[in-house]
Amino acid sequence: MNGTFYFERPVYVSGWGSCGGPKEAQGPLARGFDVLWDDSRRKNQSWEKAEREMKLTACRAALYRAQTGNAGLFIAGDLLNQCITAGYSARELGFPFLGLYGACSTMAESMMIGAAMISGGWEEKVLCSASSHFCTAERQYRYPLEYGGQRPPTAQWTATAAGAVVLSDKRGSVRLQAAKAGTVADGGIKDASNMGAAMALSAYDTLSRWFSETGKGPDGYDLIVTGDLGAVGKSMLTELFAADGVDMAPVYEDCGLMLYHAGQDVHSGASGCGCSAAVLCASILPALDKGLYRSVLFCGTGALFSPVSNSQGDTIPGICHLIELEAV
Amino acid sequence: MNGTFYFERPVYVSGWGSCGGPKEAQGPLARGFDVLWDDSRRKNQSWEKAEREMKLTACRAALYRAQTGNAGLFIAGDLLNQCITAGYSARELGFPFLGLYGACSTMAESMMIGAAMISGGWEEKVLCSASSHFCTAERQYRYPLEYGGQRPPTAQWTATAAGAVVLSDKRGSVRLQAAKAGTVADGGIKDASNMGAAMALSAYDTLSRWFSETGKGPDGYDLIVTGDLGAVGKSMLTELFAADGVDMAPVYEDCGLMLYHAGQDVHSGASGCGCSAAVLCASILPALDKGLYRSVLFCGTGALFSPVSNSQGDTIPGICHLIELEAV
Repeated sequence: MNGTFYFERPVYVSGWGSCGGPKEAQGPLARGFDVLWDDSRRKNQSWEKAEREMKLTACRAALYRAQTGNAGLFIAGDLLNQCITAGYSARELGFPFLGLYGACSTMAESMMIGAAMISGGWEEKVLCSASSHFCTAERQYRYPLEYGGQRPPTAQWTATAAGAVVLSDKRGSVRLQAAKAGTVADGGIKDASNMGAAMALSAYDTLSRWFSETGKGPDGYDLIVTGDLGAVGKSMLTELFAADGVDMAPVYEDCGLMLYHAGQDVHSGASGCGCSAAVLCASILPALDKGLYRSVLFCGTGALFSPVSNSQGDTIPGICHLIELEAV
Repeated sequence: MNGTFYFERPVYVSGWGSCGGPKEAQGPLARGFDVLWDDSRRKNQSWEKAEREMKLTACRAALYRAQTGNAGLFIAGDLLNQCITAGYSARELGFPFLGLYGACSTMAESMMIGAAMISGGWEEKVLCSASSHFCTAERQYRYPLEYGGQRPPTAQWTATAAGAVVLSDKRGSVRLQAAKAGTVADGGIKDASNMGAAMALSAYDTLSRWFSETGKGPDGYDLIVTGDLGAVGKSMLTELFAADGVDMAPVYEDCGLMLYHAGQDVHSGASGCGCSAAVLCASILPALDKGLYRSVLFCGTGALFSPVSNSQGDTIPGICHLIELEAV
């Protein structure tokens, strides 16, 4: 009801895979990635084609880990206009395909829909994925890379990364317990270089509804992770909850602050739907698998605007989809 | 399995709504539309904002017909970069939102996912919608409108229209019986002015799988309707099936050829995800409701490319999602 899903017929994460670029290879999560590139284009003719190869690499790593070559559905999205990374990847994989657009919330959205398809009894295995690429996003959303536009301190750095998971009805080490689809929240922010602030409100909205629906709070989880609010959005969300008397600090992290070291010149942190997807697959799922976490809330946060809506004076609405993961 | 869904816990279409522009008002389905505009921008500052108003109008008509003011999920998409029509509409509606990108297959995709959410027992009511606008699509995908670029005879005309349905677990006059998610098919076509041909192959792929899985053929339906192959794609699909000894002609229509009169200067017919959405809601669902059809296969067909992939030399892959509707 109202976007909340309890998956009574259990859904497990039976495989995960990740692929990252050279900047990600210098970050703190490098050792968790399945594949890292030392060149963000590799042998591809374009960055767009490189992003595609990156997504396929993450998908194949997830299928390999799940010990399967097949999935009944491929549910995926990316940041490029008309979601071409997902569409062309679906052509290569050959699985039935559902394309999504959820901006940086895509990974959580794809896993929510995929889990419903398994828990509802229609599929045994679903492959879910999200990806982004700094070079494709930068030139689509902002400026030609050669221009070298200056970035304000609130700006985030689009991750060159992809993540993928295989959801399954067969028992595995991580269970996808529940999910909640977010409503669109809008705090009136118009600055496209401050998306963390725009999305913090939606993360607050979905999380506070979740806490009140379930009676749980931050102390019910080992980790609550948003993806990606960055430094500005993370402190806003912490303050919003503090005003309600809820202390998020002990368990709260943001994927945008996990992917890179502070010294990597990424200003407010990482973003792009590949960021939370890769952090999930290179760090969070392996930690759940090893029993380092027992219970995790993974909250995908997306800014649902475009350069056109921005130039037409529209504010930046945000959305946050949440999934609950448990080590079993 | 493999993208096929039988909705055993029944799902009904309990409301539908449609809104169209001035060209649609001159077409053969005009009388079926809930709202028609005599100006494609109306009082909005931009065409993009007009498309948004059009989508909201269709959604509100569907909610009104379903006698509800609420839905547990809003599942929607459009053709604009970053799906801004759907995102901003979701902000206005306030329902939990799942954004999709399926190009012209969006309406079928949204109904498939929505039906799963109801049949799985998570939601009672889901609002699904797709929309497009000639003026927003033309300037995003092709040329500034003022330029007046010439159109080849294979080109289709993007519909200025929106459609929306309310799916429900409560018994209604139309049941959404089953669905099938398509795989991405690619016939190697590179001509962005001939998308009907690019998508015909995917329609053939999904429909022929469906026929072989279910043992049904065209004689099992009162209407099989694709949306939107246009004149070129429709005759290709008919020929592809004829080569298999399957005669589609007696029951086969295409939304792209239903929305406008032949004399309306639309070349190969209509397209845009608002076309099949509006034809469904202004013509097919009312006919099922009145008992004029008993059984309909609605096949949403989308071309999953972008101006960037096209300019980089990629071919145009297509997808076709199918849903089966029954009068009850």
